Amino acid sequence: MKNSRWYIEQTSEDEILCHSLKEIIYSGKSPYQRIEIIQAGNFGKCLFLDGRMQSAEADEFIYHEALVHPVMLLSDSAKRVLIAGGGEGATLREVLKHPVEEVVMVDLDETVIRISQEYLPEWSMRAFEDPRVKLIIDDARAYIEKTSRYFDVVIIDLPEPEDEGPAFLLYTKEFYEKVKECLKENGMMVTQSASASLINLKVFSSIIRTLREVFPYVKPYIAYIPSFFSPWGFTIASKRKDPGKAEEALNEKLSFIERKLRFYDLESHKSMFSLPKHIRTVIENRGVVISDNSPLSFY
Amino acid sequence: MKNSRWYIEQTSEDEILCHSLKEIIYSGKSPYQRIEIIQAGNFGKCLFLDGRMQSAEADEFIYHEALVHPVMLLSDSAKRVLIAGGGEGATLREVLKHPVEEVVMVDLDETVIRISQEYLPEWSMRAFEDPRVKLIIDDARAYIEKTSRYFDVVIIDLPEPEDEGPAFLLYTKEFYEKVKECLKENGMMVTQSASASLINLKVFSSIIRTLREVFPYVKPYIAYIPSFFSPWGFTIASKRKDPGKAEEALNEKLSFIERKLRFYDLESHKSMFSLPKHIRTVIENRGVVISDNSPLSFY
Amino acid sequence: MKNSRWYIEQTSEDEILCHSLKEIIYSGKSPYQRIEIIQAGNFGKCLFLDGRMQSAEADEFIYHEALVHPVMLLSDSAKRVLIAGGGEGATLREVLKHPVEEVVMVDLDETVIRISQEYLPEWSMRAFEDPRVKLIIDDARAYIEKTSRYFDVVIIDLPEPEDEGPAFLLYTKEFYEKVKECLKENGMMVTQSASASLINLKVFSSIIRTLREVFPYVKPYIAYIPSFFSPWGFTIASKRKDPGKAEEALNEKLSFIERKLRFYDLESHKSMFSLPKHIRTVIENRGVVISDNSPLSFY
Amino acid sequence: MKNSRWYIEQTSEDEILCHSLKEIIYSGKSPYQRIEIIQAGNFGKCLFLDGRMQSAEADEFIYHEALVHPVMLLSDSAKRVLIAGGGEGATLREVLKHPVEEVVMVDLDETVIRISQEYLPEWSMRAFEDPRVKLIIDDARAYIEKTSRYFDVVIIDLPEPEDEGPAFLLYTKEFYEKVKECLKENGMMVTQSASASLINLKVFSSIIRTLREVFPYVKPYIAYIPSFFSPWGFTIASKRKDPGKAEEALNEKLSFIERKLRFYDLESHKSMFSLPKHIRTVIENRGVVISDNSPLSFY
Repeated sequence: MKNSRWYIEQTSEDEILCHSLKEIIYSGKSPYQRIEIIQAGNFGKCLFLDGRMQSAEADEFIYHEALVHPVMLLSDSAKRVLIAGGGEGATLREVLKHPVEEVVMVDLDETVIRISQEYLPEWSMRAFEDPRVKLIIDDARAYIEKTSRYFDVVIIDLPEPEDEGPAFLLYTKEFYEKVKECLKENGMMVTQSASASLINLKVFSSIIRTLREVFPYVKPYIAYIPSFFSPWGFTIASKRKDPGKAEEALNEKLSFIERKLRFYDLESHKSMFSLPKHIRTVIENRGVVISDNSPLSFY
Repeated sequence: MKNSRWYIEQTSEDEILCHSLKEIIYSGKSPYQRIEIIQAGNFGKCLFLDGRMQSAEADEFIYHEALVHPVMLLSDSAKRVLIAGGGEGATLREVLKHPVEEVVMVDLDETVIRISQEYLPEWSMRAFEDPRVKLIIDDARAYIEKTSRYFDVVIIDLPEPEDEGPAFLLYTKEFYEKVKECLKENGMMVTQSASASLINLKVFSSIIRTLREVFPYVKPYIAYIPSFFSPWGFTIASKRKDPGKAEEALNEKLSFIERKLRFYDLESHKSMFSLPKHIRTVIENRGVVISDNSPLSFY
Repeated sequence: MKNSRWYIEQTSEDEILCHSLKEIIYSGKSPYQRIEIIQAGNFGKCLFLDGRMQSAEADEFIYHEALVHPVMLLSDSAKRVLIAGGGEGATLREVLKHPVEEVVMVDLDETVIRISQEYLPEWSMRAFEDPRVKLIIDDARAYIEKTSRYFDVVIIDLPEPEDEGPAFLLYTKEFYEKVKECLKENGMMVTQSASASLINLKVFSSIIRTLREVFPYVKPYIAYIPSFFSPWGFTIASKRKDPGKAEEALNEKLSFIERKLRFYDLESHKSMFSLPKHIRTVIENRGVVISDNSPLSFY
Repeated sequence: MKNSRWYIEQTSEDEILCHSLKEIIYSGKSPYQRIEIIQAGNFGKCLFLDGRMQSAEADEFIYHEALVHPVMLLSDSAKRVLIAGGGEGATLREVLKHPVEEVVMVDLDETVIRISQEYLPEWSMRAFEDPRVKLIIDDARAYIEKTSRYFDVVIIDLPEPEDEGPAFLLYTKEFYEKVKECLKENGMMVTQSASASLINLKVFSSIIRTLREVFPYVKPYIAYIPSFFSPWGFTIASKRKDPGKAEEALNEKLSFIERKLRFYDLESHKSMFSLPKHIRTVIENRGVVISDNSPLSFY
């Protein structure tokens, strides 16, 4: 081997990924997790939480554009937006490309936000300084349960919870019901929905199934994230409006934002929302309803 | 770690994948390569040549359906088919789902064919016993250069060559010119085209660029292969007919074969042929023409 | 890498060893542990329990000769011997090279004994069939606490316990007091005593310190075991006789057994019982007394 | 795994060692080799050349005391000393603990010397500033062949050569003959002699055999180096005086230096010079004579 230094990530009981490790940019701990930023051979600067890749310089634009723009453009009028999680600031950065009036971002771990701004400034691009942004350090579910405000769009950008950690409660039917309550009449939500690789569709299909218990319209989609070595699932859920119908107006809406985007356009939208047959088959048949009393083991 | 046994695959200078190793089903050598079949934790039986994953029980259907069916259905009349490579027999199995009259398969390594039939019989499903099949043990380029026959479809299913090995000459402009010569007037070819992950598009984009030097119509597409941990590139090249136009008739043509397929249908076709914006950008700008005198280093 | 298959053993939080994996000879589970026998590149057949190397074809003779012969030869009259642990049968094999009258072997895991005889017959060399041998399947401490018999020599050949497992109680002061009670007046015991590498002397030094609380004479020694990638500690404890004085008679006693041994002779004895200065320094200063109430975390 | 960052060292075709990687202190290249200094979990600061561990903060004292003090004390009058290699400066540091008049150190790679002084100052302890020291940047064999000077002691502290590299010529009969020529009448040399683990004795035994072709007295010995995970071989060769006889005077000679040493004393000397039986057996039978025309493949 020409390279001796490796960052080793066990992504499941049966798989390990190793990334060549050029430099250790930051290594520390918050009250909630182990935080590391490394320079990797192929992906540039990479943020790891508890040893799990969160986002990488080379391709974070794919994940964040895929998460944010479909729901923002399919929604009628995305003026008030709530982001749950999203500590690196890149989700916020993408939201602010739209003509929003207010963005509330709720994240538990202040250290991740601070470290990201210091070492990964290209992720947030000073988005936190925008006067439309309100940052709240809190548990996302606690905030959503107590807020009296209503949002056009809720974007859920939280890591998968470790076994039985409190974040389990951010992927349950009860949580999604609370999200629904703080959405406006025409509101939509989107959530990152874990790996969409054939061997690992349990979480994705269960999130879809759980959302279907709560929302009349649920639309899953997929984008491949190179640094995750996996296609990634996302799910839009809508209170009243069929997102499928809204696709017709996409082309026009995209025109004002298209040149600011590297990943998302009409063709990318089609690639994300056309799910291969074997994925559709599993999604329809395998998911279980996740509830506070029967949360899902993600690993 | 609950598991101690691993199959370790270095896929690039900067990445290593480890698969849990349940069982060693076969381990040996042919005159051309190291051959191993293992039972892996997530993917079932897996065939490795020289330490590189070739195909896996859990998802070989994706790769082989993605390789075979688009070109077979977009082509006018796929009666005579040539397969270059494809030792495991699964490409042949898929071709035989179409009403072909003759399939010539040329592969160099008889050992791989024999071992695959013995240990991976589900790959070929007795396809080699079909009277329409003619198997030739030879170098694919040598065969194509000397044959006087003409084919409707040529399917190139060869592994990426190691540094400067002879297989380099199966990805060059000169080789593609020979393929073109043995295609009928309305003929089409398809070739597997290496990884289509953002970090690794050099080979895919160079194959596309090289084919464009030879063929008037070239159409790249992508399917995610879980056991490769990567989206995979494929490229169709056509002598006279625009494959894009042929897409309109797909729906009808698919009806007679659809229930035999697990991956490929109209929706999967759309997901494969809609390339994300950042992939299209790289593909258009980065490829180089591969020729016998300036072959490409794949790793 | 020319080899793709590896057995990976994490020996501490900071070290991992990988052995090339030629063949999986046996893989299964007993009620107590995961049992694997593999063919490794350098060490031949290797027995792993719960992912930890126990002994290897290439060098088990070093460990077992080092464990058995010093105490057997330094003891006055080793006629009745008790082995605690030693499932593979190799400790028993070495004991039987001496003119003993009776050997009681107590091991908890019958499966290890059976599997070892089936797949590693060279380890035990039919020792279990010797009429002087009495095999008891039981917890070693339970047996020692209830037996009314007395032994000349007790040989403790137990793996290091995992965190807080029951085997902790086989390395405590209270256990050694029980061992002392079942020794004859001139009796001696020996115990394998974990790694004696500089970075990892906590267990070895604590075993020595604990034995010193119970026995008047305690003599540690070291042999390098290649397949452990580490020097290994052993400790002899004597009820009345100074083993150091007994060394003078070694030469004579060795003569009758020497040609049956591959590792142990007078020169090897000197190499084992001469501890380097930095090891002596740590051993004298770092150990803690291990007791049932404050057992030691081995990893 | 609680730790995700590892330094991976393939020590043979069949073995890999992984060290937890706390910090990358230095990473660069000289004209001769890749140089890395890392902070490892167990061994403190570690110097790697071309991915191979050279010495570690936690235990370099063992290697360097074992290399230097036996030959210095067994020699009659070690006033003029030549060190071949030894770039980190620790061998020089140990030599200067003796009442020498002059030390010539010849090393090829100035970068290693400079980087070591900057990042590993405890290795050399300002030894290069001592007025008795003369540092020459050159190939050791070239220097020895052209020098007209005579030395009491020659210490060879060179890494094992990679396949067919020029350093092969520093382990051959012809090279040792040149060393002999520049030794005084009563002179002695010592060379580090590679791993002395059972599975890997080819180099050690061949160095011994080759030295026996050139010198009347050859004495191998062994010390375990934790960061190498292996016992390490050393060999003393003497022109006229039997080093074995000189051992009798060791005790007295040691008294003036003993309190400056952490590893070496009379007991450690005994542990090093008493070779276990199986090692002696292999050493006597397996080595081959290494010559310029038939050098040895070390890996």
